Amino acid sequence: MKAAFFDAVAQPLRISAQADPSPRADEVLLRVAGCGICGSDLHITEDPAPFGIGAGFVLGHEISGEVVAVGRDVDALSAGDRVAVVPMRGCGTCARCLSGDPARCPDMVLIGGGYAEYVTVAARQCHKLPPGVDLADGALAEPLAVALHCVTRAGLKPGDRVAILGAGPIGLLVAFWARRFGAAHVVMADIHTHQRERALALGATDFALSGDRLAENISDLCGGPPDIVFECVGKRGLLQAAVESVRLQGKVVGVGLCIGGDEWDPFIALSKEIDLIFAVFFHQGREFSAALDALASGIPQQIITERIGLSQVPQVFESLRRRTTQCKVLIQPDLS
Amino acid sequence: MKAAFFDAVAQPLRISAQADPSPRADEVLLRVAGCGICGSDLHITEDPAPFGIGAGFVLGHEISGEVVAVGRDVDALSAGDRVAVVPMRGCGTCARCLSGDPARCPDMVLIGGGYAEYVTVAARQCHKLPPGVDLADGALAEPLAVALHCVTRAGLKPGDRVAILGAGPIGLLVAFWARRFGAAHVVMADIHTHQRERALALGATDFALSGDRLAENISDLCGGPPDIVFECVGKRGLLQAAVESVRLQGKVVGVGLCIGGDEWDPFIALSKEIDLIFAVFFHQGREFSAALDALASGIPQQIITERIGLSQVPQVFESLRRRTTQCKVLIQPDLS
Amino acid sequence: MKAAFFDAVAQPLRISAQADPSPRADEVLLRVAGCGICGSDLHITEDPAPFGIGAGFVLGHEISGEVVAVGRDVDALSAGDRVAVVPMRGCGTCARCLSGDPARCPDMVLIGGGYAEYVTVAARQCHKLPPGVDLADGALAEPLAVALHCVTRAGLKPGDRVAILGAGPIGLLVAFWARRFGAAHVVMADIHTHQRERALALGATDFALSGDRLAENISDLCGGPPDIVFECVGKRGLLQAAVESVRLQGKVVGVGLCIGGDEWDPFIALSKEIDLIFAVFFHQGREFSAALDALASGIPQQIITERIGLSQVPQVFESLRRRTTQCKVLIQPDLS
Amino acid sequence: MKAAFFDAVAQPLRISAQADPSPRADEVLLRVAGCGICGSDLHITEDPAPFGIGAGFVLGHEISGEVVAVGRDVDALSAGDRVAVVPMRGCGTCARCLSGDPARCPDMVLIGGGYAEYVTVAARQCHKLPPGVDLADGALAEPLAVALHCVTRAGLKPGDRVAILGAGPIGLLVAFWARRFGAAHVVMADIHTHQRERALALGATDFALSGDRLAENISDLCGGPPDIVFECVGKRGLLQAAVESVRLQGKVVGVGLCIGGDEWDPFIALSKEIDLIFAVFFHQGREFSAALDALASGIPQQIITERIGLSQVPQVFESLRRRTTQCKVLIQPDLS
Ligand SMILES: NC(=O)c1ccc[n+]([C@@H]2O[C@H](COP(=O)([O-])OP(=O)(O)OC[C@H]3O[C@@H](n4cnc5c(N)ncnc54)[C@H](OP(=O)(O)O)[C@@H]3O)[C@@H](O)[C@H]2O)c1
Ligand SMILES: NC(=O)c1ccc[n+]([C@@H]2O[C@H](COP(=O)([O-])OP(=O)(O)OC[C@H]3O[C@@H](n4cnc5c(N)ncnc54)[C@H](OP(=O)(O)O)[C@@H]3O)[C@@H](O)[C@H]2O)c1
Ligand SMILES: NC(=O)c1ccc[n+]([C@@H]2O[C@H](COP(=O)([O-])OP(=O)(O)OC[C@H]3O[C@@H](n4cnc5c(N)ncnc54)[C@H](OP(=O)(O)O)[C@@H]3O)[C@@H](O)[C@H]2O)c1
Ligand SMILES: NC(=O)c1ccc[n+]([C@@H]2O[C@H](COP(=O)([O-])OP(=O)(O)OC[C@H]3O[C@@H](n4cnc5c(N)ncnc54)[C@H](OP(=O)(O)O)[C@@H]3O)[C@@H](O)[C@H]2O)c1
Ligand SMILES: [Zn+2]
Ligand SMILES: [Zn+2]
Ligand SMILES: [Zn+2]
Ligand SMILES: [Zn+2]
Repeated sequence: MKAAFFDAVAQPLRISAQADPSPRADEVLLRVAGCGICGSDLHITEDPAPFGIGAGFVLGHEISGEVVAVGRDVDALSAGDRVAVVPMRGCGTCARCLSGDPARCPDMVLIGGGYAEYVTVAARQCHKLPPGVDLADGALAEPLAVALHCVTRAGLKPGDRVAILGAGPIGLLVAFWARRFGAAHVVMADIHTHQRERALALGATDFALSGDRLAENISDLCGGPPDIVFECVGKRGLLQAAVESVRLQGKVVGVGLCIGGDEWDPFIALSKEIDLIFAVFFHQGREFSAALDALASGIPQQIITERIGLSQVPQVFESLRRRTTQCKVLIQPDLS
Repeated sequence: MKAAFFDAVAQPLRISAQADPSPRADEVLLRVAGCGICGSDLHITEDPAPFGIGAGFVLGHEISGEVVAVGRDVDALSAGDRVAVVPMRGCGTCARCLSGDPARCPDMVLIGGGYAEYVTVAARQCHKLPPGVDLADGALAEPLAVALHCVTRAGLKPGDRVAILGAGPIGLLVAFWARRFGAAHVVMADIHTHQRERALALGATDFALSGDRLAENISDLCGGPPDIVFECVGKRGLLQAAVESVRLQGKVVGVGLCIGGDEWDPFIALSKEIDLIFAVFFHQGREFSAALDALASGIPQQIITERIGLSQVPQVFESLRRRTTQCKVLIQPDLS
Repeated sequence: MKAAFFDAVAQPLRISAQADPSPRADEVLLRVAGCGICGSDLHITEDPAPFGIGAGFVLGHEISGEVVAVGRDVDALSAGDRVAVVPMRGCGTCARCLSGDPARCPDMVLIGGGYAEYVTVAARQCHKLPPGVDLADGALAEPLAVALHCVTRAGLKPGDRVAILGAGPIGLLVAFWARRFGAAHVVMADIHTHQRERALALGATDFALSGDRLAENISDLCGGPPDIVFECVGKRGLLQAAVESVRLQGKVVGVGLCIGGDEWDPFIALSKEIDLIFAVFFHQGREFSAALDALASGIPQQIITERIGLSQVPQVFESLRRRTTQCKVLIQPDLS
Repeated sequence: MKAAFFDAVAQPLRISAQADPSPRADEVLLRVAGCGICGSDLHITEDPAPFGIGAGFVLGHEISGEVVAVGRDVDALSAGDRVAVVPMRGCGTCARCLSGDPARCPDMVLIGGGYAEYVTVAARQCHKLPPGVDLADGALAEPLAVALHCVTRAGLKPGDRVAILGAGPIGLLVAFWARRFGAAHVVMADIHTHQRERALALGATDFALSGDRLAENISDLCGGPPDIVFECVGKRGLLQAAVESVRLQGKVVGVGLCIGGDEWDPFIALSKEIDLIFAVFFHQGREFSAALDALASGIPQQIITERIGLSQVPQVFESLRRRTTQCKVLIQPDLS
């Protein structure tokens, strides 16, 4: 089969062929139908060490596909099943795994492998798609679940004023859930005006250009400083911007992956007595199914800006480093 | 103008004419476009004392309409505005009122008056309808906000198993929000199978006939005893049924108005260590707007089973006491 | 060894001898040093069926003692250890047991056996006494942990106004923790004035006689209706009294065992939008050790009103049914 | 009267005389009996700008004293009253002030003035001392209330594992409350072993030397990584140390004042999905009275290491910048 391999920092991904994987006892073999390119994938290829990733790794953790073979211990799935994949693979037997939260399993590994024609995953990582969900689009369940987790971690209440820094896929899907859960104002901030349209389509009530007067702009658009600010960028200084924007005793939710340390002024956070709540991964049992349900009820299609075949992956992936108008790019191996 | 008057217990409402009301300084005069008949209205006419209601009262607190005149101190509204009305009228100046929660104002009165051609309400009780919401349907904002309040009081989390006793408008709208907020299972229980279809349309994942084996049926359909049970009937014994159905350390939300006392076995509630959470009214500032937003994004129309003119009110109101297939009946005075 | 046996309703307990028990593999044999008589023990002997208790049962679940022999699999304890006993015996292997909460184990049994010279319990039910705690007084750890659980379930915050119905041992120990956790007012209500002194010694800031104007009295003494009312009596009508006393949107904590059903008016609870929170048992891992720590730092001795030998048990137990000035009676088998 | 004046950074405080202040209509004049030197006072004199403090300012916000004169609108206090002072002075009329939380009043000013023989404060800032509390020691109510606020912000539960960085007065009093609220382990970390004794006296169950293997040491002493870590130092890098020490999904409470920015690695906080909760000031209505109650029930005296007259203030204040064995130093103007 063909796949897109990571070789080294500053080198484009490489398309090569390798033997088809075969499923272990508790695994299934999937024909990949859709695999999203995630902001984290770009972070990882810039600084792979903290993620324990080396040469020859195949990225891709937002996966949907069709089961084509099952390991000998797998009962719950069979060939032909249409599934979306949870990328956190826990041991399957510890208390956290049994409670449906493999993300908090001490032995959790974050799987990749989706930038390929086939991939093997544990059967317990797979959820069947509800009827009516397009097979490739099932790959969106993963970022949808991440965004849902951010919103539940925030304890968002109907009527809340919300600001979101970063109108990438994660930020946009946070906006989607925030409105669904009754936020009165959802102001999305990003650095390009072309994202405005998309933000409004996904549920934002307003759009602010990130920059000098960001806190004031957000406050004006929200009718007061927001109750919750989500940091969905992952660059130095953005947590600080969130802390400056949020109201007294408000909440900042840290979502972005900021690698290599950050500088900030915790005195402002102290003076405002904020809660800085980090949110990572999601709760498989509770949140992935809810994401699939939301997919079934229809998500604005504006979030997917391009669907590409495997052969286009290296070039498109590089272009996303200085991306302009892209949002979620979906790899659909059967397009190439 | 014409209105439907309550005279006495066991007597049908009476349609008569009376002088058009005129707005006080802080009030507006509305031409009523829609007014829902609520389960509570029926309770009230059976036992008006606890509600402080006497002969000559005009029921109707789920009101939408068009502003036709405004009091001399009213700036925020003007003739022609399309509004939905919050029936809890607070003093407007206490801490609770200022925080947007007139339901908890010590001087709160629950207004009626909607079973009429015209009604006066305080301007602060009015919210403008979002574009695209049908004027008469704006009356649904009130029960939608009540149901939202029940779900927020419950602290519902994505993935929760939910059961709802009573597939009347309130129970159905609780189902709507429960699914929207990510409940994995929403089992609706009622006493007639014809409600099944409607329950599924509003978001329930399953339907159970209320009766002897209710707790077991709910548990079977939910894949285990539910985390939350909403009591949306308001008859003797239903809180007990909820307590019996809910899981160990689960939550029962008391919504129904059970007048005249109830009998139950608190030892079961103690043994299961449940939380019995009562929910009444809603938070105007936070929840009514969220309800209007939901209306704008579209609520299943199955909830409205009949639209009637004023002249039909007495007869339809009586029929609802032993109602069969009705759900929300909307009075639209301009139909008669 | 000698023990006090329950034979039938309306019959006094009977002192008889029987063979000394011997510990199973996971058990230890304790020489009982102290065993409290609990309000629940009296309830049980009036209506044993709901508790699954029959003739020949030995009551007593507030136990402290010295280890005199250990089963073959017991490593953590050895002869001579001074321990207090957790009466909830879980399977020891399920998720709830592993998380330290055997009270919520599906196979939990509530053990008795403390009204005796010797008793066997699982080693995992035993906590070593901190230095300085009198061996017999270690029996108080159990009701202290129950009371702590009630206070944590209530989510009591510094500055709260608290009322407690029932100045028995449980109510008094709730007062102890409530003050320790910063309650501004703790009003204890009971039916005899002689309990006033004891209530104040344990931490209550005031005392009210239970009766007609209870809600008003409590409100006067608290400087307003209380935020939290604990029902620590367990008789019909007391939950209703708690609901009537608590403030709008306050919390009622149901602690008392009211057997045989109760009548109440849930409409008042709905109108006030209260939370009725039941509290039963405690969390072994979190709360029993905290209770032992509190014992070590010193608990007012007024709670123990009598220390009796085994031979006095039948007569004293009956007298407690119409008890006058007694509070906690401690059985100390070595006194007889 | 005499007072200790701040002139400029790097200059010792100066004792001078100035006219006695006289109370405005809503104020009282206090003869200062006790005034604590707080870690924040030292921060302020190093970098006064963020605190809006200039030359001629009199520090001192942990104040107790006797009322010697009252303004013309003051009813609740009269000459001779023994009081402790809340240093946050709100407007007295906004919603936050009326709810007892002047710290969150938009017009709040943090008063000083306690390093003096007399001081004027608003009557609403004064709480009468309970009987039995030494007048000078009443100054401890302020840091006790701060520490209580930190513990309530943390949502500490019985059985929690707790670590506290910084065994200064604030850290020690956090230990006091943490144990009182049922923490199972309270490990105090500081940079000198002489603080060990004091830490244990205040309630810590163990002591760790701050340094390279801090996270491991804390984990060993707590029986696992702590649920909550309090940062009570206020130097660069300490929030990072707290984040490294806390367990997966644990809480870090930011208490220390770190002026001038900080560097940290938020990726670790994200990976662990922690809550970083800042805590500042306290809730007057709820927490100051609870602190006074705790004072009345007795606080370990080890926290006060020196009692000095006004004339000693400049020299002792400087020595605290490189303090060795000092903890809380209490200024008692009547000693000089
Ligand atoms: N916590 C978790 O579990 C989790 C899961 C998935 C992803 N993540 C992280 O979440 C972040 C967002 O993910 P994503 O996939 O949405 O990433 P993304 O596509 O890179 O989106 C980030 C967005 O932020 C914008 N941006 C850059 N600088 C900004 C600034 N100063 N102010 C406002 N916006 C700015 C970017 O604009 P340009 O495109 O023009 O630069 C882009 O639109 C990433 O850091 C990712 O690693 C976290
Ligand atoms: N807490 C609040 O703020 C608030 C606000 C509004 C309404 N309410 C109360 O909430 C309740 C529901 O309101 P609603 O307008 O939806 O009332 P509704 O139309 O009367 O709905 C009640 C439903 O429960 C069904 N039912 C009757 N007995 C049942 C049983 N044993 N098991 C299951 N279902 C049973 C009824 O069936 P049939 O129609 O066939 O009898 C009906 O479908 C009422 O008590 C109302 O007063 C409370
Ligand atoms: N939830 C749990 O986990 C748990 C655990 C242990 C115990 N309990 C239950 O908690 C309750 C209290 O236990 P306990 O050992 O403290 O029992 P107790 O010794 O029987 O105490 C009950 C107290 O309530 C008083 N009382 C009776 N009627 C009253 C009224 N109308 N108003 C106010 N006070 C009244 C009693 O006075 P007289 O003595 O004069 O009648 C007595 O002082 C019992 O129901 C017990 O079964 C529950
Ligand atoms: N948030 C609020 O509302 C509030 C209120 C009051 C105070 N504060 C702040 O809270 C902090 C503590 O106040 P405090 O009065 O207790 O101050 P403090 O007396 O200065 O105590 C700080 C303690 O931390 C120790 N320390 C220094 N470096 C350390 C390290 N690397 N690891 C562990 N311990 C270290 C110090 O030791 P040495 O003395 O040997 O340096 C000292 O014992 C200060 O930053 C203060 O400004 C905040
Ligand atoms: Zn695992
Ligand atoms: Zn009001
Ligand atoms: Zn178990
Ligand atoms: Zn104020």
